[in-house]
Amino acid sequence: MNGGPGLTNAVESKRANREAILAQYPDWRPDLSRGIPNDVSSCTLSRLSPREVEIVHLDATALLEHIHRGEYSAVDVIIAHSKAAVAAQDLTNCLTEIFIEQALRRARELDEIFQQTGQVIGPLHGLPISIKDHMKVKGLDTSSGYVAWAGKTVAEDDAVIVDVLKKAGAIFYVKTANPQSLLSLETHNNIFGRTFNPFNRTLSPGGSSGGESALIASHGSPIGIGSDIGGSISSRSTLRSLWAQASVARIPHAGLMGSHDGMDNIVGALGPLARSARDLALFHRVLLGAESWLLEYAVLHMPWRDDIVKGLGVPEKLTIAVLADDGVVRPHPPLLRALENYKKALVAAGHEVIDWIPFKHHESWELLLKFYFLDGGAEYRETLAEGKEEATPSFSWILEQCGGRAYTIREMWQLNVERDRYRAQALAHWNDTQNRTRSGRPVDAILTPTFATLAPPHDSTRWWGYSSYWNLLDLPGVRPLTACLRAKPSRGYIRNQWDPTTYEGAPISLQLIGRRHQEELLLAILNQVEAAAKLYTKHGPSEQTSLEMV
Amino acid sequence: MNGGPGLTNAVESKRANREAILAQYPDWRPDLSRGIPNDVSSCTLSRLSPREVEIVHLDATALLEHIHRGEYSAVDVIIAHSKAAVAAQDLTNCLTEIFIEQALRRARELDEIFQQTGQVIGPLHGLPISIKDHMKVKGLDTSSGYVAWAGKTVAEDDAVIVDVLKKAGAIFYVKTANPQSLLSLETHNNIFGRTFNPFNRTLSPGGSSGGESALIASHGSPIGIGSDIGGSISSRSTLRSLWAQASVARIPHAGLMGSHDGMDNIVGALGPLARSARDLALFHRVLLGAESWLLEYAVLHMPWRDDIVKGLGVPEKLTIAVLADDGVVRPHPPLLRALENYKKALVAAGHEVIDWIPFKHHESWELLLKFYFLDGGAEYRETLAEGKEEATPSFSWILEQCGGRAYTIREMWQLNVERDRYRAQALAHWNDTQNRTRSGRPVDAILTPTFATLAPPHDSTRWWGYSSYWNLLDLPGVRPLTACLRAKPSRGYIRNQWDPTTYEGAPISLQLIGRRHQEELLLAILNQVEAAAKLYTKHGPSEQTSLEMV
Repeated sequence: MNGGPGLTNAVESKRANREAILAQYPDWRPDLSRGIPNDVSSCTLSRLSPREVEIVHLDATALLEHIHRGEYSAVDVIIAHSKAAVAAQDLTNCLTEIFIEQALRRARELDEIFQQTGQVIGPLHGLPISIKDHMKVKGLDTSSGYVAWAGKTVAEDDAVIVDVLKKAGAIFYVKTANPQSLLSLETHNNIFGRTFNPFNRTLSPGGSSGGESALIASHGSPIGIGSDIGGSISSRSTLRSLWAQASVARIPHAGLMGSHDGMDNIVGALGPLARSARDLALFHRVLLGAESWLLEYAVLHMPWRDDIVKGLGVPEKLTIAVLADDGVVRPHPPLLRALENYKKALVAAGHEVIDWIPFKHHESWELLLKFYFLDGGAEYRETLAEGKEEATPSFSWILEQCGGRAYTIREMWQLNVERDRYRAQALAHWNDTQNRTRSGRPVDAILTPTFATLAPPHDSTRWWGYSSYWNLLDLPGVRPLTACLRAKPSRGYIRNQWDPTTYEGAPISLQLIGRRHQEELLLAILNQVEAAAKLYTKHGPSEQTSLEMV
Repeated sequence: MNGGPGLTNAVESKRANREAILAQYPDWRPDLSRGIPNDVSSCTLSRLSPREVEIVHLDATALLEHIHRGEYSAVDVIIAHSKAAVAAQDLTNCLTEIFIEQALRRARELDEIFQQTGQVIGPLHGLPISIKDHMKVKGLDTSSGYVAWAGKTVAEDDAVIVDVLKKAGAIFYVKTANPQSLLSLETHNNIFGRTFNPFNRTLSPGGSSGGESALIASHGSPIGIGSDIGGSISSRSTLRSLWAQASVARIPHAGLMGSHDGMDNIVGALGPLARSARDLALFHRVLLGAESWLLEYAVLHMPWRDDIVKGLGVPEKLTIAVLADDGVVRPHPPLLRALENYKKALVAAGHEVIDWIPFKHHESWELLLKFYFLDGGAEYRETLAEGKEEATPSFSWILEQCGGRAYTIREMWQLNVERDRYRAQALAHWNDTQNRTRSGRPVDAILTPTFATLAPPHDSTRWWGYSSYWNLLDLPGVRPLTACLRAKPSRGYIRNQWDPTTYEGAPISLQLIGRRHQEELLLAILNQVEAAAKLYTKHGPSEQTSLEMV
């Protein structure tokens, strides 16, 4: 951890406060006396009782069933997750604000209500939810990875999404780390330092929602809220059983801190990170069931369609395109191998698979870079200067991609025209797949890696294209699809950039990309794809590969 | 008509071309030998046969029923409307491009198909549709009111909306005038001159869709396409039986010419101008039935819900807010009187009516002005200079409201923040009406004048607030609600600004504003409001007022 010259009293105070809170739970903290192994994924549960281990292995839907049947109390559930979260913090440095006592008080209130009335207060009664640092939670600091903001950004209100989820019965208890500037696919800032991948601490947990993914991967939270403007929610590199989905303007977005407030040429998306596909649907169902469009202007009036998630109008036999290589950076061999396996599984189940023809991937990135730095990077630099801090290595890298000159209004209009032309061409490109499918329909979804490499070693992230491409097009993604696959060392795949030992333990993740605003359809397709994968694993070729399915 | 110093050969050529086309139809042109009266609304039909008069009095829905039952041919229908359109051009100067021969060929094709197969090619088989000049129609000029563009903007493709409507069977035959710059609520440019209100040529037909509204008011078109970024589709001042609706991003918008391409801080809406409420639903049903979101990136995936238009989920007893005076400019007395009458009608039908408390109307306008001129007006000025033309009086007026300095990117972000804050407050303001209603619900819609005055005398338009207010909030409007009311001279309402003789014949129009993206609900509410008005007129007080209802 290196705060550099910008390490101020505010930062010291934030670190000391966090440590003081952790010190209140000595029995929950892991034994670090013999050092920290690279793979800490099992260490986070060392202080949990068997019942608590059971609790933290359930997805949100199952947890809620147990709570609402009175089998677990809200207090049981929040304590189990808080124990794992405290351990995850010691092992991966994934937390920023910790407010477990407040959460416990709320859990007790909810338990009392349930005991007295037999009723839950809402669909999420007693569900712990973790949240990325830059989203406002009333009474807590929102330093968001900027030294300049440390201790000075105590939220006066909850973000809209927090408000809705609290009213539905959810309990917030921890905030999770995001990188300096939020514009990084790793998670590192000068207030709290670097966040580690729980499966291999020499690797990054991804970013900018890396604290969130490290925490959920460590069983410290059943479901969390991330955000994404270039690939963050993919948080591609963390864990089996981590699912995430982003949907611009379908769920509330107001109440976030970050640079470039008011920049809407391209817009970030909030979305859930969860342990199951059904939890993604649950999350949207609750938020849209609250008629979020009446709570926040920008939210689209698109009620959640659970009937579509359950298959209404979804083709029995899918047509899926596979994008293996975007023509800019060829993905690591295990990713290509995983794609091949999925392809076989889909075909075996009677679905149609065609190759996706890459369309202007490098152009997409060049355009995105311009939008990331419309002001020439001035606001970022000012905020760093204000905090007397240096850019972290990963932010420094992307800041160097920026020309340094601010665009004029008219140049910006021209960039929007280019963006709109690009989007129109990309839409036509998708529609045109109908000329190549046996079904005569355009493809239903695209299956592709979430990232060109497995989880990257710290400070090595470069090509964002496999995730940012979909941000520019505002297409929903479910990621990582094959988080259940994990790389094992294999001598068969050595390439220049591919050293299997480096990536030991790193999960292999693919994503499924759907059409704009059709999040329900994408989840329905996901269910079919997963069913095909299960069937294939059960009845597939007996030959053991270095990648196991399920 | 005064082209000023910018009158170029291209302009002369466009005027000559238009006149040459009109000269092909000597029998359709009105007799102007005894001069043109102020009220030309009945003159446009002087050359039509009784059967043709019958045709041009039908709405699109009725026309299509007749065509699809084989009672009128597509040729009958296009000829009747073309006759009235040619006359309307001579009397109000509402047309730009005239391509009746091309339309006739298409009508004959459609008639042949129908005769041979007994089938229509689509839901709009044989329906004439007029279209505002700045929307692209393949092979036609898109000069859009700019001298610099005259003759140089022949479209290579149809706008997406034109393409969809053509495929549904619609026939395009005329384009209609829009003002220089499109940023004007009157319709006047230096290519074709000024467009007149058919009910009183000393008044404006509104703008920027003024050619469209003058044409439809003159029975020269059953339905047309307008656009709106400050009040245009309201085209508030033209005629009884003129209905219009705007819905940002629900229908295709790509393929328009205009200044500030790529400016999306506030976005204009396309929408239909029609002769009945059911035609508005028809228009949306066809466009959204074509899955326009697959044809144009920006279109929202919100299928049209005819079940809601028909009343599904719509409260039997409405709660309507009436905004009589926005606190900036008090509307003319006939408008206030019309509001009072509607209020009585609604209450008599058992609906609840509350007063709308005005919320920051002047602030709304100040913010809009900044967005209209983000570049300090530079692009407008350059395009005028390029055409060697002067600003028309109405555009000149608004151009003077602009500070003249371009904003920087960071200032623009700040303006977006202000806009978003404003929108959030306005949404809360609407929600808060639930504290003042007996129903306990927020109001279902707002009833308010479309403009502070009746149709304005030429070059006198000033306060845009009654229409532009809803543009900033992107709320759908149906206008004009009481176009069936017309002002009669009355000595009772003299005010400083109110001289009844000036406004003789001017229709009195109100609008109904609904919630964002809920166009179907708004149409359902409109049906209920109109039913209440009819009932009230039938059973209401016998006292005759100077305003008649229906």
